[in-house]
Amino acid sequence: MRPTKTDFTATKTRFNLPENVIYLDGNSLGALPKGVAERVQRVVNDQWGTSLIRGWNDHGWIHTPSTIGDRIGQLIGAAPGTVLCTDNTSINVFKVLGAALKLRPDRKVILSDTGNFPTDLYMAQGLNQLLDAGHELKLVAPEEVEAALDDTIAVMMVTEVDYRTGRRHDMKHLTKAAHDAGALAIWDLAHSAGAFPVKLDACDADFAIGCGYKYLNGGPGAPAFVYANKKHHETMRTPLAGWWGHAAPFDFDLNYRPASGIDQMRVGTAPILAMAAMDAALDLWDDVDLEDIRTRSVDLCELFIAEVEARCPELELASPRDANVRGSQVSFRSQNGYAVMQALIAAGVIGDFRAPDIIRFGFTPLYISLEDVVRAAEILEDTLKFRKWDKPEYSVRAAVT
Amino acid sequence: MRPTKTDFTATKTRFNLPENVIYLDGNSLGALPKGVAERVQRVVNDQWGTSLIRGWNDHGWIHTPSTIGDRIGQLIGAAPGTVLCTDNTSINVFKVLGAALKLRPDRKVILSDTGNFPTDLYMAQGLNQLLDAGHELKLVAPEEVEAALDDTIAVMMVTEVDYRTGRRHDMKHLTKAAHDAGALAIWDLAHSAGAFPVKLDACDADFAIGCGYKYLNGGPGAPAFVYANKKHHETMRTPLAGWWGHAAPFDFDLNYRPASGIDQMRVGTAPILAMAAMDAALDLWDDVDLEDIRTRSVDLCELFIAEVEARCPELELASPRDANVRGSQVSFRSQNGYAVMQALIAAGVIGDFRAPDIIRFGFTPLYISLEDVVRAAEILEDTLKFRKWDKPEYSVRAAVT
Repeated sequence: MRPTKTDFTATKTRFNLPENVIYLDGNSLGALPKGVAERVQRVVNDQWGTSLIRGWNDHGWIHTPSTIGDRIGQLIGAAPGTVLCTDNTSINVFKVLGAALKLRPDRKVILSDTGNFPTDLYMAQGLNQLLDAGHELKLVAPEEVEAALDDTIAVMMVTEVDYRTGRRHDMKHLTKAAHDAGALAIWDLAHSAGAFPVKLDACDADFAIGCGYKYLNGGPGAPAFVYANKKHHETMRTPLAGWWGHAAPFDFDLNYRPASGIDQMRVGTAPILAMAAMDAALDLWDDVDLEDIRTRSVDLCELFIAEVEARCPELELASPRDANVRGSQVSFRSQNGYAVMQALIAAGVIGDFRAPDIIRFGFTPLYISLEDVVRAAEILEDTLKFRKWDKPEYSVRAAVT
Repeated sequence: MRPTKTDFTATKTRFNLPENVIYLDGNSLGALPKGVAERVQRVVNDQWGTSLIRGWNDHGWIHTPSTIGDRIGQLIGAAPGTVLCTDNTSINVFKVLGAALKLRPDRKVILSDTGNFPTDLYMAQGLNQLLDAGHELKLVAPEEVEAALDDTIAVMMVTEVDYRTGRRHDMKHLTKAAHDAGALAIWDLAHSAGAFPVKLDACDADFAIGCGYKYLNGGPGAPAFVYANKKHHETMRTPLAGWWGHAAPFDFDLNYRPASGIDQMRVGTAPILAMAAMDAALDLWDDVDLEDIRTRSVDLCELFIAEVEARCPELELASPRDANVRGSQVSFRSQNGYAVMQALIAAGVIGDFRAPDIIRFGFTPLYISLEDVVRAAEILEDTLKFRKWDKPEYSVRAAVT
């Protein structure tokens, strides 16, 4: 392990983790930070219960999409006033895709890749069908995105880190390539935000969206986030024109006028209990160095690859071997992958299975240690060696619940 | 007061209400039911914290939009499998409006009225601008909706109860009129669900949406709901085609295929903490008779009108005098309405102000009593008589927080 300024032994103590579990699925749902339950309780009883409708002003509820958005912005290299915490990722995809297409009215093609998370593709397909104006979603292999950028492409929309393999696109390079072709670049940061430093402004990304419930630990179904580069704030128009994104929501005008800046991307009333959990979870990052997160993440992933390859030669690495093009997860291809993962979960190592044959392990330095990595590899070896996934007691459900 | 089977003295004890407050703004944000804090705490600690990713299956999180949706369905006369609890009201407007326009491809006009809540109008304007295909939002006065129904109208979209005046549309009659004109009918139930019995299926409504945080007491920004009449389930297509609404979300197909039934109206990951609060709040209704809610609501409103008109002749009733065409609120027009409401709030009577001159009082029988109504009228009289709204101590903020 390379030394870090951040004390990762200390950060681990800030989570409530169940005993006898090594949790390598924080890239699907982050673990529970200790302050969250108390914060949500306080908002329910001391704010909603006591202030009632006055809570919108007295406790700043009305501002939470911006205040929490700016906190997320610090983790993804986005200037204040360019990020909102709001809605879910799919809905935010629709907003930025709708806005981006209107900024390139002469082009009809949305370019994405087959490694993108399906909901991004579905939202594009739904938008195209709604528009019924000849728009097309063009899908290529992840390594072919750059070559597919030509003067038909209105928008390149890709997820930076592949949810199955952990393969990572080069944001700066691809964004420039998109711009050189006259296209806009939308980045999905679902597996990036909180996993390593992201530099949206520095890469000149046009729009971005991402999850609150993975590496940001905001809880199941936590509010997502949306980013729009400042250069588009004057000209973009969200297709989801809700009253919270109106220039003067409490004037109750009959006509929509967009709010200035990123506030236009608000739609309806913010979910205050969920926002409270998200905000409390972000407290974790106050004394964490993002470069340290990346250093430790790479060390954990490299160690896991070395341990598993030494112990389990039957598994094939599905993630890139080069850490420079990999996110914060390691995936292997495995025969009977689903059953293997069920047996692993029953033995206390929680990862994830992704069809058809991927077993996937996420590494979140805030609560995963060197010892966890070695122990997880040992249990994986043991599970494969004794074909524990063949035994009926492992086939039903995790014994550790 | 007319007698009721429901014990409204008992229902009031099931809320945590601050002392020295008469809360007549449950039509803006419902009060806190007692079981909510404990339920949310349990979901945070015992489900998220302990089960982690396994919570989606082990605790039925994945089903919450449907299970909670069906509970709401019981309050709005909707058959099981026709309602989802999901997203916010504005986003649900977009879904059903987008779906409805596709079901009437030869027509271009969305008909609504000037008493509709602005966000519904904004979402329609945003959709029309996105489509850029000649669609138009036509606004008429509420009493002119029926006459405006002709063969140009694709969709009539109205809110049943006017958020300012409490004026109530006749759902059965207007829906039939819309159908007679070949149009579809979308109903916004923001001020209806939980306020009185709604009969969506019986009225043959096509689509409906509404709030979780008003009369349903789900908390600030609670998840909203969406209804689609069974007759449209096979042919409707939501414009927000997210992975949660896919026929097989965990197949991770590259192509969208809509789920059957109302499940298509899901988009992204459900906000589980907020869903838990909503679900707990709905427990209140288990032994409440909805006809009783209406009986008591009318009695409370009639009493308030009588008391206020006797005490405050300078106020003009803005709500319909006929209870048959009024929801569960009473509004008056008042000079200096904003200042009057601020003074009232400072004196412990929480209502709401809506520009330009409306002071609005919501009556929720679950926690508002006869005594509350008389006392609120007394305080209103006192506030006006002594021009308390002119005094500086009332102009800053409520003293009762």
